[in-house]
Amino acid sequence: MTPTLIIALDAMGGDKGPEIVIPGAALALERHPDVSFILFGNAPRIAPLLDAKPRLKARSTVRHAEIDVQMDEKPSQALRRGRNKSGMWMAIEALRQHEASAVVSAGNTGALMAMSRFILRTLPGIERPAIAAIWPTTTGECVVLDVGATVGADAHQLVEFAIMGEAMASCLFGKKHPTVGLLNIGVEEVKGNDSVKEAARMLREMKLPLVYSGFVEGDDIGRGKVDVVVTEGFTGNVAIKTAEGTAKQITGFLRQALNATLMSKLGAYLAGGAFRALRERLDPSKHNGGVFLGLNGVVVKSHGGTDVLGYATAIEVAIDMVRNGLVERIASDVAEVHSVLQAPRAEEKSV
Amino acid sequence: MTPTLIIALDAMGGDKGPEIVIPGAALALERHPDVSFILFGNAPRIAPLLDAKPRLKARSTVRHAEIDVQMDEKPSQALRRGRNKSGMWMAIEALRQHEASAVVSAGNTGALMAMSRFILRTLPGIERPAIAAIWPTTTGECVVLDVGATVGADAHQLVEFAIMGEAMASCLFGKKHPTVGLLNIGVEEVKGNDSVKEAARMLREMKLPLVYSGFVEGDDIGRGKVDVVVTEGFTGNVAIKTAEGTAKQITGFLRQALNATLMSKLGAYLAGGAFRALRERLDPSKHNGGVFLGLNGVVVKSHGGTDVLGYATAIEVAIDMVRNGLVERIASDVAEVHSVLQAPRAEEKSV
Repeated sequence: MTPTLIIALDAMGGDKGPEIVIPGAALALERHPDVSFILFGNAPRIAPLLDAKPRLKARSTVRHAEIDVQMDEKPSQALRRGRNKSGMWMAIEALRQHEASAVVSAGNTGALMAMSRFILRTLPGIERPAIAAIWPTTTGECVVLDVGATVGADAHQLVEFAIMGEAMASCLFGKKHPTVGLLNIGVEEVKGNDSVKEAARMLREMKLPLVYSGFVEGDDIGRGKVDVVVTEGFTGNVAIKTAEGTAKQITGFLRQALNATLMSKLGAYLAGGAFRALRERLDPSKHNGGVFLGLNGVVVKSHGGTDVLGYATAIEVAIDMVRNGLVERIASDVAEVHSVLQAPRAEEKSV
Repeated sequence: MTPTLIIALDAMGGDKGPEIVIPGAALALERHPDVSFILFGNAPRIAPLLDAKPRLKARSTVRHAEIDVQMDEKPSQALRRGRNKSGMWMAIEALRQHEASAVVSAGNTGALMAMSRFILRTLPGIERPAIAAIWPTTTGECVVLDVGATVGADAHQLVEFAIMGEAMASCLFGKKHPTVGLLNIGVEEVKGNDSVKEAARMLREMKLPLVYSGFVEGDDIGRGKVDVVVTEGFTGNVAIKTAEGTAKQITGFLRQALNATLMSKLGAYLAGGAFRALRERLDPSKHNGGVFLGLNGVVVKSHGGTDVLGYATAIEVAIDMVRNGLVERIASDVAEVHSVLQAPRAEEKSV
């Protein structure tokens, strides 16, 4: 029997706060009846919503928090104002104190990362954390990191991202040796900026516990060419938002085209099942949950605007990561390569 | 009457070389009967293809080139091997000598940029060139630059890109004051890397002849939030390829879904017109043509794998740019802001 797993939820985070978080947790509980929750947030707002979900209520503890971190608050301000007293802070603190095994929040990403780094600290040997997204591909899913935590990651940090992303993909997809690619603007060795070229050299030449598949380009991500796509936070963030925007744009075009004539409307009606299947496949709530990697603990960030299903998905990602020992795996991989990583660090500087 | 406009074509460039270039030029000529061409490349290969297009033949001159620049050749090697003797080089040289008003090539992008910079030089006051793409949006099109010429552009160069992109959008869309946004990972002032933040400050505070609309994110590009999206070459290249990949992925999903059942096939048959409209709207050959900005002359890069229609589109982009005085406009805009740009350059260094 698997031991009870306790998840700390930032109940006030997200565009709709507890109105999504609580039904989302209830849905996740249906699929994982052995999980328990600690809900951090405004107790009077949480109470009636929890009353409506008696099964969830039976497996939840509520801890009142005086302060809600706002979605548009600057991380530095959230860190000051929300210290000790915000639900977000308290949830992460519960993880640090081993009261919970993971944190899920749909709140302010910058604040969540700032507090997580402050409270949990990065794992030994990890310089900077990363946010890893789960990206739908033609063949399934892949992991893309970093999508916004570490803007301008250098070669050494990109190599750390590769190790962390590989560990996550292994936990998520159950693959023993997920393939790892470096995002670049061409597949030839001469292409790219200095950090990408140097990271490629390190990944090729160093004996790391991962399968490095070389450079990949933007259009290779959705093609599922590799299981893990590594890039620095600025480019990764632009890439994921561009893909989301393009998906919306095309489905918008499709809707317009199908509504244009009576004949196309009839066709759309008959092909309704196909469109539902397409919608299902593109549904962002099916792929919700950005995993913070490189910290002493599992923190999963849900989209702020997600729905109940999406929030449940984010909780399930957290469960997967805990059950498959993500943090332990990253820690041991990093320990294994630490000596290897140290040597080229000096070389890199002298190049 | 508009004077005859002569376009220099790199006839051997692209995955299929003259087999696409020549019919593409013939198609462009149908729409612009007053244009003439100089075709640079392997004369014996060009001759029979040109014989098949008598109207084009009547308005074309062929100049034999001994060397073809290969699609996978390194720019430095192409520059050495292709010097004076390649069709690509000769076409750009014809532009420099005012024998032609623009160059169109579907050849090796890196080689084309290297030769263009070498032969044409950048305009006075422009540090680095950019490649600008035409991006389909829900409301029409926008210009995105740089998509690969200047990896790691600094704040000053981003401001130059803004000026050049604005001039191009004005020529392309006929708008007097196109709006310009800086691509970032959030719209708040604190977000992004140093060059983006500094470029934003310069665009806000300096009196430049353009309408600066602030930061935009990846999903704002396809939404058509601004007419011009400015970013450095690495991120821009990843963004455009990611969008292309996502578009292919979704249309693939759609095809699969529609083929899944007899009912959906019937629906798809009835809605055939809608799918044709969608395909038309997403057709990359409708938006083909990356414009090299910041050089003493108009150079347009067609996708290497484009079709006849796409190549004709790239020629038409070149015609538009020449007729609307792109280079002159950039030169005068840059001259106008040159003194303004110089001052903050020093400040920027001291920040």
